[in-house]
Amino acid sequence: MNDHVNDKPSVTVLGLGQMGAALAGALLAAGHPTTVWNRTPARAEPLAARGAVHAASVAEAVEASELVLVCVLDYAAVRELLAPVAGRLRGRVLVNLTTGSPEQARAEAEWAAEHGVGYLDGGIMTTPPGVGDPANMVLYSGDPELLAAHHDTLAVLGDPVGLGADPGLASLYDAGLLGLMWSVFGGWLHATALAGADGVAARDFTAVANRWLRTVAWFMTGYAEQIDAGVYPGDDATIDVQIAAIGHLLHASADRGVDTRLPELHLELMRAAAAAGHGGDSYARIIEEFRKK
Amino acid sequence: MNDHVNDKPSVTVLGLGQMGAALAGALLAAGHPTTVWNRTPARAEPLAARGAVHAASVAEAVEASELVLVCVLDYAAVRELLAPVAGRLRGRVLVNLTTGSPEQARAEAEWAAEHGVGYLDGGIMTTPPGVGDPANMVLYSGDPELLAAHHDTLAVLGDPVGLGADPGLASLYDAGLLGLMWSVFGGWLHATALAGADGVAARDFTAVANRWLRTVAWFMTGYAEQIDAGVYPGDDATIDVQIAAIGHLLHASADRGVDTRLPELHLELMRAAAAAGHGGDSYARIIEEFRKK
Ligand SMILES: NC(=O)c1ccc[n+]([C@@H]2O[C@H](COP(=O)([O-])OP(=O)(O)OC[C@H]3O[C@@H](n4cnc5c(N)ncnc54)[C@H](OP(=O)(O)O)[C@@H]3O)[C@@H](O)[C@H]2O)c1
Ligand SMILES: NC(=O)c1ccc[n+]([C@@H]2O[C@H](COP(=O)([O-])OP(=O)(O)OC[C@H]3O[C@@H](n4cnc5c(N)ncnc54)[C@H](OP(=O)(O)O)[C@@H]3O)[C@@H](O)[C@H]2O)c1
Repeated sequence: MNDHVNDKPSVTVLGLGQMGAALAGALLAAGHPTTVWNRTPARAEPLAARGAVHAASVAEAVEASELVLVCVLDYAAVRELLAPVAGRLRGRVLVNLTTGSPEQARAEAEWAAEHGVGYLDGGIMTTPPGVGDPANMVLYSGDPELLAAHHDTLAVLGDPVGLGADPGLASLYDAGLLGLMWSVFGGWLHATALAGADGVAARDFTAVANRWLRTVAWFMTGYAEQIDAGVYPGDDATIDVQIAAIGHLLHASADRGVDTRLPELHLELMRAAAAAGHGGDSYARIIEEFRKK
Repeated sequence: MNDHVNDKPSVTVLGLGQMGAALAGALLAAGHPTTVWNRTPARAEPLAARGAVHAASVAEAVEASELVLVCVLDYAAVRELLAPVAGRLRGRVLVNLTTGSPEQARAEAEWAAEHGVGYLDGGIMTTPPGVGDPANMVLYSGDPELLAAHHDTLAVLGDPVGLGADPGLASLYDAGLLGLMWSVFGGWLHATALAGADGVAARDFTAVANRWLRTVAWFMTGYAEQIDAGVYPGDDATIDVQIAAIGHLLHASADRGVDTRLPELHLELMRAAAAAGHGGDSYARIIEEFRKK
């Protein structure tokens, strides 16, 4: 099975929580020699049983590979872990898959540059069970040449999507995409509660909702062009039309005892855009309501 | 081109606003003999030029086809139009593609049954430019045999999705799916404003957002099973983990002057679920916050 095991670059994974363990597991499954370390050593055991080298210290783990992945709780933990081994990281490539802010990512990239360490910041756009599936994205920002050099190894974790040289962008996209996810979940749970009140199973409603998301994605693609151009023609559907339509949702929700805070907030945004004279524009115009302080 | 024009069933379209005109246009393009009527007659002219029969009255229009589509402003307009021609509708099939509430749809189905008229209620899940594309759905509820009998003709408008015998369901799904759309738009516009503040073009962010929606849809499919089962294991990601993660979004937004009402509402829902003792559960548990009055 592992005929070509020695052809694949070795990788170090620091942090073996739910996500770090999934990363190391995917690397092992793909035949990469994998060295692991975790603050609580017991969490390394299942991976060692699958062939990982269990390093006794962070220093030992860092020295085992040119490519070092770190995935711990937060950036404070990353710095605490790595500051004592900065000298040993010199000349290696650090890929930080820990979640944080764009500002933290930029500071970490600066720290790495000061110590002669190659740096990529990453955002894993799935949960641990989705790691290793090429349908899922892992976002990277930082030096594009480093990403190109390690692309094939990183592809084992999920499809690598490069966002360019600014190291803060993976975190910025990550935060925005999670916000989109919570919004999708909110709208979907609201609607599932609504349909459920009339006896519709969540599974049935969700199959239709998932198809609908593809149509909504198609609307978004067109609206993105409007946003970049700064013009918002309401040829297909205007904000005024949406204000009329949301009444049905609010009434159907109230009739069924379903909470209306979420559609009320959308209506508030629509009404503000209409009050500013943009009722005849497309929904994309509402970006201006978000841009306001 | 229209070699088989006489093989295709004739169809009547009442109401030629933006949507009705798109419906009639798709039927003409597919070679169906099409009779049209609109309150303001001038709107029928472009369709007549493409081969539609322009009926002089609603009565004449109804008599031209077994299948009668109606798509006007609201259900009050539908009733106002059709009450005077109820006798002529007897034995025909009325497909009501006007947007309304589930209660209105159920009342309209009753009215149709009292007058011996076959009735399907529909929800068009796209804008006029998307009519005729089989990637888009048209939802139908009401007698499944009527839908089966007219499936091929209705497929010309978009992929017909049958929701079963309760005539209110197309409207209920429609309202819920529009609510999902506004939520998706809200989350996406918020995130696009956020990324835009650091110089990211809407087009670039949206390409990634659209891929991400497929991963989110995969989460929803799993969560729907949890909702139907009434158990919410937080194996992949818990509400507590999301509460920690949303802090990055709130801070990144505040730092960039991006409005935070939407993520704050999501945080409020998450906190309520955690306060009820469900912080270790999956996000799907938040459906209970929507079910509350
Ligand atoms: N789970 C997901 O779905 C998901 C998705 C995308 C991104 N992420 C991100 O991935 C990162 C890890 O998440 P996770 O799900 O693996 O969390 P987790 O299961 O709670 O694991 C946390 C990891 O961080 C380590 N750690 C915490 N503080 C430390 C410190 N001061 N020094 C050294 N190690 C420390 C823990 O070590 P011990 O074992 O010793 O406690 C453990 O390995 C987070 O930034 C998270 O936001 C997670
Ligand atoms: N546009 C969309 O994206 C979209 C998507 C899904 C569903 N829909 C639904 O489709 C329906 C029509 O929307 P639309 O976009 O076509 O709107 P529209 O362009 O404003 O057209 C409204 C139509 O309704 C007619 N009408 C209004 N009141 C009437 C009355 N009392 N008697 C007879 N006819 C009357 C109008 O006739 P006149 O020409 O004489 O004014 C016109 O044909 C609505 O229920 C809408 O919610 C629209």
